[in-house]
Amino acid sequence: MPKVTSEYRAERRAHIMAAARRCFVRDGFHASSMQDLVAEAGISSGAVYRYFASKDEVIEAIAAENLDQVVAVLAQAIGEGASPQAALTAVLEFVTTRHREDGFAAIAVLVWSEALRNPPLADHLREAITSALATLSGDPHAAPDGGAHGTRTDDTAHHEPTAMAEVLLCVLPGYLMRLALGGAEAVANVPGAVERVLFVTGTSPAHP
Amino acid sequence: MPKVTSEYRAERRAHIMAAARRCFVRDGFHASSMQDLVAEAGISSGAVYRYFASKDEVIEAIAAENLDQVVAVLAQAIGEGASPQAALTAVLEFVTTRHREDGFAAIAVLVWSEALRNPPLADHLREAITSALATLSGDPHAAPDGGAHGTRTDDTAHHEPTAMAEVLLCVLPGYLMRLALGGAEAVANVPGAVERVLFVTGTSPAHP
Repeated sequence: MPKVTSEYRAERRAHIMAAARRCFVRDGFHASSMQDLVAEAGISSGAVYRYFASKDEVIEAIAAENLDQVVAVLAQAIGEGASPQAALTAVLEFVTTRHREDGFAAIAVLVWSEALRNPPLADHLREAITSALATLSGDPHAAPDGGAHGTRTDDTAHHEPTAMAEVLLCVLPGYLMRLALGGAEAVANVPGAVERVLFVTGTSPAHP
Repeated sequence: MPKVTSEYRAERRAHIMAAARRCFVRDGFHASSMQDLVAEAGISSGAVYRYFASKDEVIEAIAAENLDQVVAVLAQAIGEGASPQAALTAVLEFVTTRHREDGFAAIAVLVWSEALRNPPLADHLREAITSALATLSGDPHAAPDGGAHGTRTDDTAHHEPTAMAEVLLCVLPGYLMRLALGGAEAVANVPGAVERVLFVTGTSPAHP
């Protein structure tokens, strides 16, 4: 047995989550049992249960990781000075690459439907949306850990960034849905389209 | 027994579908059995099976009806001269009202995840998206049934209507996802935001 370092634990956990993703993308959440996950991971069930007590825990861990990554990509782009549209485009690129690797968009769609009957999952999704809205609208008061469910500023100056954020935060899940359903080709024109038709009053379009 | 007219059959079918919607919104597709649907409909199982041979048939009928209605609302608005943004706003209003009545958005999310493993359902979704894209971009050649859907008149740039349609056709499923997850309040600002930040080069924003 290798020594159980935190690095080893993280790798092991990631290995199980990757196996679970393959099961879920192939069969959905309902048709995948913990035994299927164990078989796919190719390790003992005892080893799997050491990390996840139930299938729901695996689902929640995968959803949390995916959501955290999306919010992080968004925050990084905005932090580097990108416009909200460009930041969203960076996220669209990220999820498209990830979808090719591990069915990211299909997992997202499964998580949404699961969230309808799983309140912790729904909470996590709502928090991620709130956090992403705050990041995109540049509203520090609506930041994720500060005020849970963002306080909107009704100050006129803040209207447009908020409106932009609201639209972009619909574009993202809609893109994921279409990516899951039709593959990368189905959404190939969306990132360019986002930059072409989304702009706030007073700013110039990307392609005049 | 009432006389079996086509009107009676349509009513009966709608009654069963309404009962099925309630089951699906409450318990999801997987946890709802045909027996649950029969019990919810309050009629004999023989009467239900006369209309639907399986749960999958019920799901497909509900999905088809929902998609057809969305495409129809869009086509009507465009046919009456609405801009693509305004047409999309009409659809957002329609789905919000319907969601209040029968959980329309939750059904949509369930259908998407079901479509990942149900090819006919996926086909129907893809066709609805293609049809809606054609309607919104005013492309008669891409129209599903010969081009009955409105043609937009601005020929300044062929690119922009397509770009707008691509973005709007992400906004719609994204809106449905957020509506299903957070209710009407969660998306209350989206329709106004759509009209404020989405416009093609050369046109004026709705709220300058």
